[in-house]
Amino acid sequence: MNRLEPRQAAQWLMERDSFLVLTHIRPDGDTLGSAAALCAILRKLGKRAAMLPNPGTTGTYADYVADYWAGAEERFDHVVAVDIATHGLFFPEEEPYKGKVELCIDHHPSNEFYAENVCLDAERASCGEIILEISRFLCALDDEIATLLYIAVSTDTGCFVYGNTTAATHQAAAELLQYSTRYREVNKRCFRTKSFKRLRLEAMLVENMELFQEGTIAVVSVSCQMMRELNATEQDAEDLAAFAGQVEGVKVSATLRELEEGKTTKISLRTDPNVLNATKTCALLGGGGHVAASGATVQLPLPQAKEAILNAIAAIQQEG
Amino acid sequence: MNRLEPRQAAQWLMERDSFLVLTHIRPDGDTLGSAAALCAILRKLGKRAAMLPNPGTTGTYADYVADYWAGAEERFDHVVAVDIATHGLFFPEEEPYKGKVELCIDHHPSNEFYAENVCLDAERASCGEIILEISRFLCALDDEIATLLYIAVSTDTGCFVYGNTTAATHQAAAELLQYSTRYREVNKRCFRTKSFKRLRLEAMLVENMELFQEGTIAVVSVSCQMMRELNATEQDAEDLAAFAGQVEGVKVSATLRELEEGKTTKISLRTDPNVLNATKTCALLGGGGHVAASGATVQLPLPQAKEAILNAIAAIQQEG
Repeated sequence: MNRLEPRQAAQWLMERDSFLVLTHIRPDGDTLGSAAALCAILRKLGKRAAMLPNPGTTGTYADYVADYWAGAEERFDHVVAVDIATHGLFFPEEEPYKGKVELCIDHHPSNEFYAENVCLDAERASCGEIILEISRFLCALDDEIATLLYIAVSTDTGCFVYGNTTAATHQAAAELLQYSTRYREVNKRCFRTKSFKRLRLEAMLVENMELFQEGTIAVVSVSCQMMRELNATEQDAEDLAAFAGQVEGVKVSATLRELEEGKTTKISLRTDPNVLNATKTCALLGGGGHVAASGATVQLPLPQAKEAILNAIAAIQQEG
Repeated sequence: MNRLEPRQAAQWLMERDSFLVLTHIRPDGDTLGSAAALCAILRKLGKRAAMLPNPGTTGTYADYVADYWAGAEERFDHVVAVDIATHGLFFPEEEPYKGKVELCIDHHPSNEFYAENVCLDAERASCGEIILEISRFLCALDDEIATLLYIAVSTDTGCFVYGNTTAATHQAAAELLQYSTRYREVNKRCFRTKSFKRLRLEAMLVENMELFQEGTIAVVSVSCQMMRELNATEQDAEDLAAFAGQVEGVKVSATLRELEEGKTTKISLRTDPNVLNATKTCALLGGGGHVAASGATVQLPLPQAKEAILNAIAAIQQEG
């Protein structure tokens, strides 16, 4: 495995001509915006580049990245993974590419170095910031590239509000806004619009929210039953993990999402890192992520998953 | 009246030694953060500077600006107004200073040039951006000044999401984040914290939300009974009128707040002004306001108030 600086990653891309770009399961604005921007950059250089269609892509993002999906019959010479920390985050259609990724561009400290070449900067709030760095060695920004990177940079920071936001994030945004004519539309669609179903889902979370340790820990659950009852889509449930953390006084919030009824639960943990290390806590359940935002998928029904994460939190708290 | 560039405003400040700084009624993060930052800058230069205590200051901001309130007995030689477009926005204690403001620093296009000297840049998203420009000619940034200016810059753009956000806003933020050690705390307190009661109130609005005309009109109600049930305060109910407007597809939202049980209802109307003129609609019920945000108080119980606003909307729609 080789570690590449952005300049070297750009060089690696420059020397090749045809790329399939992978994104992670349950794709967010960072993996999709970064991957689409990378394709736009490579196409601007006259190369072939497309994204493996990600079936989890929700409507808002689909509108922006639709031009970059690979056709079913298309074949490419090189495989690039964007914002994917581990093979565990490959979606089923990406199975054949496990062990075949030649370049991974990522910002997760938990990256498992499964790729031949890895361009990793764990100081960055989003993969979009790294793609922007790489782009400097390849081509000038334009409206399309800047808008896609703005989607990546803004969504991974909750529009510059999450703790991962740094001066570098704002520097990237300042640069992108000089080229993007559509950033206001992105802001309205991604951050200032909620579906009625989404609001009903949030209302249900408020109803089932449990507070522990004098209101410093909040646990909420999203069951399959709730999703069915509301006829809610994946898009309606997007980034629900941030919801419980906004309650006044809450330092640690766990959002339990039932993936398979009575069987599989995805736990998303958001923490004030001064209070609890989310990465370590989720590692106890076989997961990983960032110090303030990690996750784990466990083969447990909702009530047992709740117990498991509360136990993991207690264990890490005891470690001090 | 003289128009001053930031450099000239800095010069004007440099030549004087003692300043009283005014903020606007119902103060927000921009007027308070900008005024406090200006005081911090002037004090760093060895000058005397303080803000006239603004009784409308809410808890979150009070914590950051408390060091800058003028004592009751203190006297200053020069009066500076920050983020105040007109005398109409002076709060009662500022009455004696009408006609006596020597320097007004502002970003509102509606500024009425009531001051002797005006440093106005209507292209700026916040007054904080202008104070930052002025500061360049006076002293280096530090944690205190940068944090206060970050409060100003971030709150006036809803944390970089409103349509007024530009590349210059992000450039300012990038610079401020290099000095502020507390911007994450500001983000958390100003943009990511809601009381549990507030969330329960929002959940109740979702439950009682009614949609009309193919989901383009939303009506929600806040009854005295709901407020009692939650033991909610006025602060918990602050700006609830904006809540229903975020629903996907909604162009017109009416929030009905029962003021006196079964008797008096305050109607707040928020509209896409291309779809409905809120001022005209509320005028039919004896109210008024802005084209996209108006209100009326009616002597009707909630259900009749709902009928009244729906009828008023229909009447204005028919006028075309």
